[in-house]
Amino acid sequence: MTKMCFNNFVQIFFMETKKAADSLVIMTELVLPNDTNTFGNLMGGRLMYWMDIAAALAAMKHCGAPVVTASVDNISFEAPIKIGNVVHIEAKVSRAFNTSMEVHLAVWGEDAIHQYKYKSNEAYYTFVALDPNGKPRHVPEMTPETDGEKKLFDGALRRRQLRLILGGKMKADEATELKALFNRE
Amino acid sequence: MTKMCFNNFVQIFFMETKKAADSLVIMTELVLPNDTNTFGNLMGGRLMYWMDIAAALAAMKHCGAPVVTASVDNISFEAPIKIGNVVHIEAKVSRAFNTSMEVHLAVWGEDAIHQYKYKSNEAYYTFVALDPNGKPRHVPEMTPETDGEKKLFDGALRRRQLRLILGGKMKADEATELKALFNRE
Amino acid sequence: MTKMCFNNFVQIFFMETKKAADSLVIMTELVLPNDTNTFGNLMGGRLMYWMDIAAALAAMKHCGAPVVTASVDNISFEAPIKIGNVVHIEAKVSRAFNTSMEVHLAVWGEDAIHQYKYKSNEAYYTFVALDPNGKPRHVPEMTPETDGEKKLFDGALRRRQLRLILGGKMKADEATELKALFNRE
Amino acid sequence: MTKMCFNNFVQIFFMETKKAADSLVIMTELVLPNDTNTFGNLMGGRLMYWMDIAAALAAMKHCGAPVVTASVDNISFEAPIKIGNVVHIEAKVSRAFNTSMEVHLAVWGEDAIHQYKYKSNEAYYTFVALDPNGKPRHVPEMTPETDGEKKLFDGALRRRQLRLILGGKMKADEATELKALFNRE
Amino acid sequence: MTKMCFNNFVQIFFMETKKAADSLVIMTELVLPNDTNTFGNLMGGRLMYWMDIAAALAAMKHCGAPVVTASVDNISFEAPIKIGNVVHIEAKVSRAFNTSMEVHLAVWGEDAIHQYKYKSNEAYYTFVALDPNGKPRHVPEMTPETDGEKKLFDGALRRRQLRLILGGKMKADEATELKALFNRE
Amino acid sequence: MTKMCFNNFVQIFFMETKKAADSLVIMTELVLPNDTNTFGNLMGGRLMYWMDIAAALAAMKHCGAPVVTASVDNISFEAPIKIGNVVHIEAKVSRAFNTSMEVHLAVWGEDAIHQYKYKSNEAYYTFVALDPNGKPRHVPEMTPETDGEKKLFDGALRRRQLRLILGGKMKADEATELKALFNRE
Repeated sequence: MTKMCFNNFVQIFFMETKKAADSLVIMTELVLPNDTNTFGNLMGGRLMYWMDIAAALAAMKHCGAPVVTASVDNISFEAPIKIGNVVHIEAKVSRAFNTSMEVHLAVWGEDAIHQYKYKSNEAYYTFVALDPNGKPRHVPEMTPETDGEKKLFDGALRRRQLRLILGGKMKADEATELKALFNRE
Repeated sequence: MTKMCFNNFVQIFFMETKKAADSLVIMTELVLPNDTNTFGNLMGGRLMYWMDIAAALAAMKHCGAPVVTASVDNISFEAPIKIGNVVHIEAKVSRAFNTSMEVHLAVWGEDAIHQYKYKSNEAYYTFVALDPNGKPRHVPEMTPETDGEKKLFDGALRRRQLRLILGGKMKADEATELKALFNRE
Repeated sequence: MTKMCFNNFVQIFFMETKKAADSLVIMTELVLPNDTNTFGNLMGGRLMYWMDIAAALAAMKHCGAPVVTASVDNISFEAPIKIGNVVHIEAKVSRAFNTSMEVHLAVWGEDAIHQYKYKSNEAYYTFVALDPNGKPRHVPEMTPETDGEKKLFDGALRRRQLRLILGGKMKADEATELKALFNRE
Repeated sequence: MTKMCFNNFVQIFFMETKKAADSLVIMTELVLPNDTNTFGNLMGGRLMYWMDIAAALAAMKHCGAPVVTASVDNISFEAPIKIGNVVHIEAKVSRAFNTSMEVHLAVWGEDAIHQYKYKSNEAYYTFVALDPNGKPRHVPEMTPETDGEKKLFDGALRRRQLRLILGGKMKADEATELKALFNRE
Repeated sequence: MTKMCFNNFVQIFFMETKKAADSLVIMTELVLPNDTNTFGNLMGGRLMYWMDIAAALAAMKHCGAPVVTASVDNISFEAPIKIGNVVHIEAKVSRAFNTSMEVHLAVWGEDAIHQYKYKSNEAYYTFVALDPNGKPRHVPEMTPETDGEKKLFDGALRRRQLRLILGGKMKADEATELKALFNRE
Repeated sequence: MTKMCFNNFVQIFFMETKKAADSLVIMTELVLPNDTNTFGNLMGGRLMYWMDIAAALAAMKHCGAPVVTASVDNISFEAPIKIGNVVHIEAKVSRAFNTSMEVHLAVWGEDAIHQYKYKSNEAYYTFVALDPNGKPRHVPEMTPETDGEKKLFDGALRRRQLRLILGGKMKADEATELKALFNRE
């Protein structure tokens, strides 16, 4: 950050710290025929599309700037969501880094007729904030408040190391947070 | 209701009264190029499409049955919503009648970049609950709790008379609630 | 209109009066799977989307300028339109005001296989004409010719008062046209 | 037709002859951003999609049965249709054969702002009528009335020979109607 | 070409000749509910839409410039493609003319479950290359290599004459290539 | 596999081993306005939607049965793909497990005008094959042939352990393949 010019520095200086709750986005979608495979279940790719938009909006609310998707962490699809059911997505920034933000997503399916709601999956999308020239720009810090937010905040460093290793940008034995997991006696 | 058969009566007897808050649906949509007119503003018809889905889901959550749109009250579009902005819709059942439900919708636009949120419009959609044969079926009663919910609940009778008159199903001088508005000395 | 500048006045002076028939738009759409609810019936919101486009085109043909949806009057959905059926929409300007136009819409469903056509609903959408800066601009007057057009033209004032009252822009006891309806002995 | 069974024969016997005008379908579509190429002009494929639906509906109105597209004749795209412009399609059965129908389409673009309407292209689509088992079924005859309809009706045999030759189902020197065109002294 | 200015001539001089294979585009699409008619078969218009995009991309790869669809030759739809099946499209420039390119398309359906692939249809789309002002511009020549490519290349002149006649731009007795077909003793 | 019943065993016995190349799916898509963010770049979610369909088709070609997306590995989006550019996706099964298949995806963007093609990202999607009751069913084994296929095949075990750990279905110290990475002296 030492190479940033004075103007930017001032901007950062006055940049308020934001709360996780400020970035909350709740999205509700109805599963229509074209969203489903031949079993009448929501296609994974369609769900990832909705999750991308919800998460991008959460990141934009946090940083007040346009964002682009930088990466998506592993996603497991547990329960199929049926045609005619409802998809609920809750997206919230879990941690802000220098120019990027990790967004946590929780996804539920809901059968409104049978009044039955079930967890579908959880995921992490990472976004980079852009200035008007399309270059990465600084984002405000994020302060977690609830226990859940603090847990997500703490885990973000470990997930970030994993992303860097998987993306070929960090060597496995530099990942001090991750090494602990595999290296216990 | 005296003409309903015994089976239905039993069903109604055990049918719990529901709270307005139980039916709340929050929908968030991003305005994409194909949703806009030549001025880059969200087309009214596209917004009414999203509102219809949000309101139908709120009605389904209240009655636990499929629903069809019966009518839509007057809608005024105040503030245009720009391409790239976000549409927030909050839908909640405002009153349940015999086989139908009135749903109140509040719609905001949000410019996530400039952190600016503005009221776009309010509306009422009415839905009928259907049994598996596609015939209207009884719905649970709705109990308002907050002051806002009570006000919407009370206004529902007046709006219903207006709907019946405008739909040619009630004569103007039978509409006792409405007459008061036009007939004061 | 006294506050309009000279330039605009000249423009209005030479602005021809248009006929209702000049603005007629006929739209035909096929109901596809994604347009329907779980009963295989056209969703109300999807129909309102098509109606908005048909009505906007009718308004544009009348005024020769871009338009935005200002309001939509009460709509009752009478007959469901099935998947695979056809939607016919006829839209025609019913009256022009200073900078706005009321458009009348008639909607039919048609089962082409069984050669059966049925009325679905009627509606009124109101549009405002915009100049290149996005400000309301004057529109030509509209002259009704047939009996049906004259009836729609005459009713437009009453519907306009109702819109103003429902939009909170007119008090009920100022609505002289509407009062008559509720105030007869 | 001699190999048809008695039941079908009776059906055909009472099958009324239909007029060209009975099958008329008028479709109006607004060119939205996703319908256009990088020059902001309507993509040819998107127009052929709309033409296919309009023509299929005209064929269904004629025969009262589901139809499938059998072939499309040469189409030349003359004038580009701009984003924000309107597409008008008029489709009408030009001739009925045993189990198939040729549909004539005329397409215009319209710039509603500048009140300018221009011919885009003409085309012929051919459809086959299907019975409930998905097999071709007999269709009513079509009687042209206006001069334009008669001209289209007469040209249909020549176009049909061309289709059969181009589809490899007829030899060029069997095409008596076409030969005349190329063989004059 | 004698009326072209010097600059363009130079451009053409250095313009490399391209191979047919350089323009190959392979497109794979899944048939979803909204793409089908009431028999659950892919609608012809939807297929022509995909073919238009595949062919336009092949033409763009050949000429390195934006293109617009100029015409589409006769298309026969042989085998219906079912919902849930896959559409394979292979598009390749078959011959380049002065400012236009003919693209050959071969289309297969594939039932991935039953491991069954079947030919659906073949077609020719013609595109015009545009300069930045939207005017037609010269395109590189195309050199066929395989026997199949040479056959398509040779047939292109005959198909072009047919297009010109059908588009009313050539008289039948000027079409020397075509006359031979109809005029043999 | 000892717990499988006789019928299934026979089925497996005759089940041929398949080659990686048999499952290859090539998909080409054009980036249209509605696929892009405010910078005119393809949205990550839209790309993941196309990748899901391409990968599902590759998995179906391998196993000859319907499949559902089970999980998606980390994806990094390197180079933005512009509106009007082309997306090329190549999907191929990298390894088959008992009832699931890992599919490797490589994605390129291509600017057809400037004849410039660039790597966008690589990814792994995992699918489960389903029998007609929607239960997981055995899939054929996959034999890699080229060096690239063999490398993907070998890495699949390590990626699978990572998936199981990240999905909470395996403990980190049971992941023998992964441990080696973090535990070297």
